[in-house]
Amino acid sequence: MDHDFRRAFPDGRTEPHRRAIAEEAPVAIEVNGLGYAVMMATPADLADFATGFALSERIVADRSELAAIDLHDAPQGTIVRLAVPPARAAAVADRVRRRTSDSSCGLCGMDNLDAVHRPLPRVPAATAPTAAVFAALAAMRAHQPLNAATGAAHAAMLCAADGTIRCAREDVGRHNAFDKLIGAMARGGMAWDGGFALLSSRCSYELVEKAALADCPMLVTVSAATTLALARAAAAGLTLVSLARDDAVLIADPVR
Amino acid sequence: MDHDFRRAFPDGRTEPHRRAIAEEAPVAIEVNGLGYAVMMATPADLADFATGFALSERIVADRSELAAIDLHDAPQGTIVRLAVPPARAAAVADRVRRRTSDSSCGLCGMDNLDAVHRPLPRVPAATAPTAAVFAALAAMRAHQPLNAATGAAHAAMLCAADGTIRCAREDVGRHNAFDKLIGAMARGGMAWDGGFALLSSRCSYELVEKAALADCPMLVTVSAATTLALARAAAAGLTLVSLARDDAVLIADPVR
Repeated sequence: MDHDFRRAFPDGRTEPHRRAIAEEAPVAIEVNGLGYAVMMATPADLADFATGFALSERIVADRSELAAIDLHDAPQGTIVRLAVPPARAAAVADRVRRRTSDSSCGLCGMDNLDAVHRPLPRVPAATAPTAAVFAALAAMRAHQPLNAATGAAHAAMLCAADGTIRCAREDVGRHNAFDKLIGAMARGGMAWDGGFALLSSRCSYELVEKAALADCPMLVTVSAATTLALARAAAAGLTLVSLARDDAVLIADPVR
Repeated sequence: MDHDFRRAFPDGRTEPHRRAIAEEAPVAIEVNGLGYAVMMATPADLADFATGFALSERIVADRSELAAIDLHDAPQGTIVRLAVPPARAAAVADRVRRRTSDSSCGLCGMDNLDAVHRPLPRVPAATAPTAAVFAALAAMRAHQPLNAATGAAHAAMLCAADGTIRCAREDVGRHNAFDKLIGAMARGGMAWDGGFALLSSRCSYELVEKAALADCPMLVTVSAATTLALARAAAAGLTLVSLARDDAVLIADPVR
């Protein structure tokens, strides 16, 4: 979507400037008819997003439990209607009653501090060589058309063991981009196969949680990781590579 | 907090590397004894954060309604206990019952799409000249010590009408950084005085909402704005300056 600005320079000049802007719109997620959350997201690849969100939120255990994903355009945004087995829907209703949240932050529905330390699954050991990381970093920009146009989109990519980028998704939100990738992989029957996830963003703990729940052995982020992200990655046995730049990367190896 | 990594280079070399990491820890916010939200934040300036959060979430209308802000260290994080007038507490309890959220995204407690379009206050017209924006941009790095050490922190700054930076706050989250600034201003009796807010991040609509609720006339962000941020800024009469770089900035003037 294009927008008209005034562009101003240090010498006082201004000129009209037209530029593409990243779209951010409400996406309401319903589970068996129950309103679960309203997320702000880039309205593209929404079936992937809904699938990844349902997996990251543990609404379903795997993709086969999503009997239907209906996208319905409403005046204010998009309504995504998920159909899940009755037992899953009952668990969701119970969470909603107990204050389910409106953010896919991994803390949804938790109202105490202990929830941050719930157990994570152990992921497989990373096997991709560091050379594969540098190969993927060199190739990633070509897979970010929305960011190239707008400068405002994050990307999440599935990279093969040799660094080849096999799938990429973009969103104004880094959590959404990763949910879209996880959903696209589930819908397309793609596995990590000794590869890794590459994210254009920094690494907060929620991204580590999403990676662990998706059984991802190695998470590479272009910007820095936080203390809690490092702690959670160690707990899951996840290899976390941060500040991944063309000239050097920082590797945090888990104890195995 | 320092962390030990392996630093890997494209030629295959690796070396030990010790680096400061930005801290991210749970902050549980209670209102008159009722659990309201668990936020992940950098555990510094938490009284500022709690004040700004309470204002941005409309838990209180102004700082005078916060009778107490108690910070309590728990093993897993920090508990912030706010004391507000009984009528405000009753409204909060009602929101919590109706599914209050765990994120300061401006959508808290809303379970339909219309909530994104709730009315915003009209802010005063911006009066600071563009030269002040370039002056603030040139000075901002000196006010970001956490980001200089970790590369993983966002900053929010109060800038005077001539671009002088009067107050700055940092956090791993851009929303948190702005809430900390808004809280610091409320607690210190600082007003915009014809100045503006400068954020190191991109501009999603929640930041525009926080600015409008804080009566801020002009919001300057280093990275790009989204479509909804531009729409919400226009609705509030807020001047939004995005992609603010040393050599040029993009100005979106509201219709007044």
